[in-house]
Amino acid sequence: MAKLYVVGFGPGGYEDMTHRAVSAIEAADVVMGYTTYIEMLEPYFKNKNFFSTPMTKELDRCRMALEEADKGKTVAMVSSGDSGVYGMAGVILQMAQDYHVDVEIVPGVTAASAAAAILGAPLMHDFAVISLSDLMTPLEKIMKRVEYAALSDFVICLYNPKSRKRTEYVAMTADIIGKIHGEDVPAGIVRNAGRPGESYTITSVGQLKEADIDMFSLVIIGNSSTYVQDGRMITPRGYKLEQS
Amino acid sequence: MAKLYVVGFGPGGYEDMTHRAVSAIEAADVVMGYTTYIEMLEPYFKNKNFFSTPMTKELDRCRMALEEADKGKTVAMVSSGDSGVYGMAGVILQMAQDYHVDVEIVPGVTAASAAAAILGAPLMHDFAVISLSDLMTPLEKIMKRVEYAALSDFVICLYNPKSRKRTEYVAMTADIIGKIHGEDVPAGIVRNAGRPGESYTITSVGQLKEADIDMFSLVIIGNSSTYVQDGRMITPRGYKLEQS
Repeated sequence: MAKLYVVGFGPGGYEDMTHRAVSAIEAADVVMGYTTYIEMLEPYFKNKNFFSTPMTKELDRCRMALEEADKGKTVAMVSSGDSGVYGMAGVILQMAQDYHVDVEIVPGVTAASAAAAILGAPLMHDFAVISLSDLMTPLEKIMKRVEYAALSDFVICLYNPKSRKRTEYVAMTADIIGKIHGEDVPAGIVRNAGRPGESYTITSVGQLKEADIDMFSLVIIGNSSTYVQDGRMITPRGYKLEQS
Repeated sequence: MAKLYVVGFGPGGYEDMTHRAVSAIEAADVVMGYTTYIEMLEPYFKNKNFFSTPMTKELDRCRMALEEADKGKTVAMVSSGDSGVYGMAGVILQMAQDYHVDVEIVPGVTAASAAAAILGAPLMHDFAVISLSDLMTPLEKIMKRVEYAALSDFVICLYNPKSRKRTEYVAMTADIIGKIHGEDVPAGIVRNAGRPGESYTITSVGQLKEADIDMFSLVIIGNSSTYVQDGRMITPRGYKLEQS
């Protein structure tokens, strides 16, 4: 049966790709994905048959990938991060019942992991991953998740924190968390994690609305125990450090 | 300055390691970690200076790693999954202020991503990651997180679902979620994800307490929209599939 790999290639650079992701891309007759992702991969894979589509045509791209595979081609559908976290794995599997294609999901290093490594160690304790995009989720539901996650003291990772049209949701989120934990809870922003131009800022929930955040950023907000030491954001796991 | 890499090498097999994790291990004069992790790595890295310690001596191991690096050796402290998710990155950074060592966190594919890829696409929507180990977190706090995560409709990933001493917490978790979403919500269990002997089961929250779960398992429980199709667990993102 023809093969469709749904590949997460991690934050962006070759060094953060898994061997399995690279093998799947190398094995593919055609590599498909959103234009930005294809542009990231082109320098690392010479003479590949790349096919890029605009971001708004996600379902068409998924159907095209399944059709190409159904014709007998080995296809890799690529995205940055983990293809299984807010990725195309779901839509592909939903559509796959109409085709004779073996779908394999190749997991990658998700943006929360990449950003956490840059900020320090904020994810040493239970955490919640929330997308602030309300394209397919009502804003009210998103903000309820923010509130309940803060009330039960999760560290919170915000995917898609801002877009050109959607700039106020980070401030709304910060207000909710600030009322629950106080305004001094550390908040980290990583821009272009693992890509050229990578940068990060560690600030507080109270200052988060002033921070420079865009659609290439990931935001991690601490729980009630998170602190900053030597410029690193740390959520302690509860070890007594004097143990020996 | 001497270098200490805190390396997450993913689920276990070489193919799911990132190039950066492999480079860090190869660059290291000494590779330290819990015995089980060292045994996983030994087949892939010949002639390395491995040093393994029992699981209960985590703080000693971290201090030893910092001391070795402080003496000028390049050290890699390894763990499976992502070293930044319930890993040793936090303790290392907490202790690092006592040493002249440059600490670099190398992220990996975390167990939730590895398990999700095997189960299908359960993490297409907001999710919460919760450890059921009450070694350092009060049980009441853990169960409050389970309840609030279910009430606000997160997909829920359970790390450390069971140990020999701790067998009832999965059942408690399933009861809480079953009361909120109903007993039919899909639940997936992946044992030994990405390792020899990998297996998985897809069942329901109502049946979860009968399932075969151990300390090498990861459990993912769906949100109110998650369903099973052709043996795969899918949380729909909300795309209208007829779009074109």
